[in-house]
Amino acid sequence: MLLNQQVKSYIEKSSWIRKMFEKGAELKARLGEDKVFDFSLGNPDLVPPKTILDAFLEIKQKASEPLGLGYMPNAGLPALREKLAHFFSQEQGVQVQAKHIVITSGAAGGLNTLFRAILEPGDEVIVWAPFFVEYGFYAENHQGKLKIVKTKEKDFSLDFDQLDEVITPKTRVVLINSPNNPCGQIYTLEELKTLASILERKTRTYGREIFLVSDEPYRFLTYEDTPMPSILPLYTYSVVVSSFSKSLGLAGERIGYVVVNPEMPQSQDMVSGLTLTNRILGFVNAPIIGQYLLLAGLGQMVDVQVYKKRRQMLGDILQEAGLNFLWPKGGFYFFPEAPNKKEDEFIHALLEENVLAVPGKGFGWPGNVRFAFCVPEKVILNSKQAIFRAVNKLKN
Amino acid sequence: MLLNQQVKSYIEKSSWIRKMFEKGAELKARLGEDKVFDFSLGNPDLVPPKTILDAFLEIKQKASEPLGLGYMPNAGLPALREKLAHFFSQEQGVQVQAKHIVITSGAAGGLNTLFRAILEPGDEVIVWAPFFVEYGFYAENHQGKLKIVKTKEKDFSLDFDQLDEVITPKTRVVLINSPNNPCGQIYTLEELKTLASILERKTRTYGREIFLVSDEPYRFLTYEDTPMPSILPLYTYSVVVSSFSKSLGLAGERIGYVVVNPEMPQSQDMVSGLTLTNRILGFVNAPIIGQYLLLAGLGQMVDVQVYKKRRQMLGDILQEAGLNFLWPKGGFYFFPEAPNKKEDEFIHALLEENVLAVPGKGFGWPGNVRFAFCVPEKVILNSKQAIFRAVNKLKN
Repeated sequence: MLLNQQVKSYIEKSSWIRKMFEKGAELKARLGEDKVFDFSLGNPDLVPPKTILDAFLEIKQKASEPLGLGYMPNAGLPALREKLAHFFSQEQGVQVQAKHIVITSGAAGGLNTLFRAILEPGDEVIVWAPFFVEYGFYAENHQGKLKIVKTKEKDFSLDFDQLDEVITPKTRVVLINSPNNPCGQIYTLEELKTLASILERKTRTYGREIFLVSDEPYRFLTYEDTPMPSILPLYTYSVVVSSFSKSLGLAGERIGYVVVNPEMPQSQDMVSGLTLTNRILGFVNAPIIGQYLLLAGLGQMVDVQVYKKRRQMLGDILQEAGLNFLWPKGGFYFFPEAPNKKEDEFIHALLEENVLAVPGKGFGWPGNVRFAFCVPEKVILNSKQAIFRAVNKLKN
Repeated sequence: MLLNQQVKSYIEKSSWIRKMFEKGAELKARLGEDKVFDFSLGNPDLVPPKTILDAFLEIKQKASEPLGLGYMPNAGLPALREKLAHFFSQEQGVQVQAKHIVITSGAAGGLNTLFRAILEPGDEVIVWAPFFVEYGFYAENHQGKLKIVKTKEKDFSLDFDQLDEVITPKTRVVLINSPNNPCGQIYTLEELKTLASILERKTRTYGREIFLVSDEPYRFLTYEDTPMPSILPLYTYSVVVSSFSKSLGLAGERIGYVVVNPEMPQSQDMVSGLTLTNRILGFVNAPIIGQYLLLAGLGQMVDVQVYKKRRQMLGDILQEAGLNFLWPKGGFYFFPEAPNKKEDEFIHALLEENVLAVPGKGFGWPGNVRFAFCVPEKVILNSKQAIFRAVNKLKN
């Protein structure tokens, strides 16, 4: 057998997002782009801000000098770490310095770099469903195990009763994703404070740090003035992981970062560990051109008004169709309940109408369906009747 | 404890290359750049070819379109895989297609992607010393173990007597690096044929594939017309890993690839596995701007005449100093024996003269010292008397 058992089994139960992506490609090839309404993939389609685009000329200049595109310190360009420290401190209202930051290949690279550094074999990573399905792989890559607790059915808020039971001496990480992919929920300051106090107590009880990790690439994209609190002031053993894939339209270039709480005892040991694991996992350093772009454009943002408008448009359609859902507080996904919670039948009915969405079981939350609205307005508008027909098929 | 035991121990015995790098930075800050002769780091300093530099404008254009810098298939841009298949087929005289190639974040990313896909816990990866020290981390990241066999003392050629003893049912990979970092040796067609026949026999004996993996980022840089054979025609279960860090001066952008032997039974399972592990390790896809650059500049090369000249200059100095060494057949390193094999003393004497090199124990080969000659000519020229003094100090 060429592959190991684990990877072989991964392939057999391959990602639903990826399956829908392939289905979409097939449909588009057969019917034409404009006949398919593809809400399956969270591929942010807004172009980077002008400052970023203009930086390409400057980067060409740098690339013409010796070592302009050469290796760099594994934690990233010193000037970028400095600038990011300033940006992050302002964004989150906490004081961090360059030495608390490691630049990574996106948030996915950041989470792997972190898990490689802190997980012992058999350690557990707790996530709240619904959750981004890749987390399970990231934990298992480094001999960890994912343990899942559910949020509250009515509004996807954090349920602490379950959490208390699930934490064991093996618990090493509690990982939250807010604004959440797929459900769009943002955890409140109140919830995060409760979470922090539980983790403090458990860390004391077991005599071993439980890390609170916040994966927050959608932080910049919130609606209805929903506050987006920072975990750093709330809990000592906290780490923020994020990326610029969405906020700057740079998903393919792979630029993100890890920020270690400056209040963490021995925080510099942690940063040394991350710098090393970023290197030995083969990232070596986050892509240098992406780092240069970020150096030029940090603080800029894609036009979030576009996402606001699309959210309204798709939300109106889903509402008119009679679906049951919460308006997302952040991010670019709707996560409505399938009619009668019949998720497979709904996905199938949508597919018959050339509408692609991802089943909730792909996020540990069967019964719902995810629609990504990082698609052009006309796709949303033109999908209206198709969505209506699919919903009606199930209601009858 | 914040970090896991393994990562903590890695940090304690941290890389010699990195130590010398830090020492160099300190010396340069104190004495000035031009007073320090830094041969420690293999950071290729030649600028990318003009075609690559010119591509920045085109990429700016692409970046201005929706999804221009967005996610892509995890195995890489289809057009780049096509073009690379053509390039690779010509370079190595074997026929490969796009479907046998996965674009990775450098060769380091490629090796991690590969090991994640094929190693079972406890599997062994055999390397020949001297070897690039990061290989040990890459194996251990994925629960593998590095096993080291020595090349022949006289010329760093492959010693097969030892190999036969070292291969066990746990052996999963034999990893070669040719042209070799640090010793500059290129393994001959004869050696590779012998190696292939041993691996065929052992694969049959144990009923489990032993992969032959060739890491060859220095393939483009050979001297004295030394032939650089391909492993693919020689052995079914072979995989080539490489990068454009050196040949195109793109080390910081992280672009490389894995090619699976088209003759391998179920080669497409292997490629599916690599595509998945490239994703779940957090690379997701190799950096898109690097991929665009490569699409524009594949087939071009940095000016290798510069390396040829530097090799001659540094070789002449080492020879005049009376050091014992082989002229490298490829790559950009010299690996002379320390006077009386006293490596630590030699490194120390060099340091006293502000010359930085890396001790051979950092490559599993104590007694020698590595000099990287990817540095400007004037550094080489100005180091002459300093090297002489260091050598003489040890000889007296």
